[in-house]
Amino acid sequence: MEKKAFQDYYPDEFAHCYGCGRLNDEGLHIKSYWDGEESVCHYTPKPYYTGGVPGYAYGGIIASLIDCHGAATASAAKLREEGVALGEKPLPRFVAASLKVDYLKPTPLGTTLELRGRILEIKGRKVTVSVTLSAEGVVCAKGGEILIQIPDK
Amino acid sequence: MEKKAFQDYYPDEFAHCYGCGRLNDEGLHIKSYWDGEESVCHYTPKPYYTGGVPGYAYGGIIASLIDCHGAATASAAKLREEGVALGEKPLPRFVAASLKVDYLKPTPLGTTLELRGRILEIKGRKVTVSVTLSAEGVVCAKGGEILIQIPDK
Repeated sequence: MEKKAFQDYYPDEFAHCYGCGRLNDEGLHIKSYWDGEESVCHYTPKPYYTGGVPGYAYGGIIASLIDCHGAATASAAKLREEGVALGEKPLPRFVAASLKVDYLKPTPLGTTLELRGRILEIKGRKVTVSVTLSAEGVVCAKGGEILIQIPDK
Repeated sequence: MEKKAFQDYYPDEFAHCYGCGRLNDEGLHIKSYWDGEESVCHYTPKPYYTGGVPGYAYGGIIASLIDCHGAATASAAKLREEGVALGEKPLPRFVAASLKVDYLKPTPLGTTLELRGRILEIKGRKVTVSVTLSAEGVVCAKGGEILIQIPDK
């Protein structure tokens, strides 16, 4: 049986995101999982997500991947903080209040990218995460994101 | 005759970006222009660029628009600083070193978004810009971007 991702537990009404929503037919469908204390996501962008120079990813797709992986990490971490296992109830859903991306090196296309998230702080409905994006073992971008939990109703 | 945008003057080898490259068949094709001291871009995202909740734009498309409009603004400003008019020579091309986006309000889909860029500093090959993204006259997101000029060869 295939392992379920954080995004598979989003409530239907919050599962339409272009970056990570399983109900968005056109979207990227990124999938995030725990790997110990870190969250991990593997994703291979299509060749047309190039920047100005073919062969390298454009800044927007890098920001998009960091944004959605960060939001999923915040959701799963909040659930875990409540002592609830994945799948026992729908994930709380977070939106970004701010996103900062440092582009450290050109990010090559044609290879699988690895995103790794870490929780820096959980304070009530506000969660702060850091995310690295690597290609072939080299960190190409670093992100920091502040997320706010959407009210249930 | 249709007015040419900053992106129409990118050299062919740098015109493949998903966000702003005229030679990317799949891309967003954003177009930026001077409006006095500010740069302006109008863009209507497709409905599938939704966030978790249908009807509102996802964080990644907002970051993408700010990234590419900021890069185009840096290019045009650098040319202007050299005393060269648009069209007299190809635009210098910039890549983001860092991008910060503050998401102030949900950004509605189904309406034309307006991005406005301002140059904060030009220091050699490094340009700092600020960008606002508005919908129906309301600023929904603010961005700050540091860009570095790509060497000609």
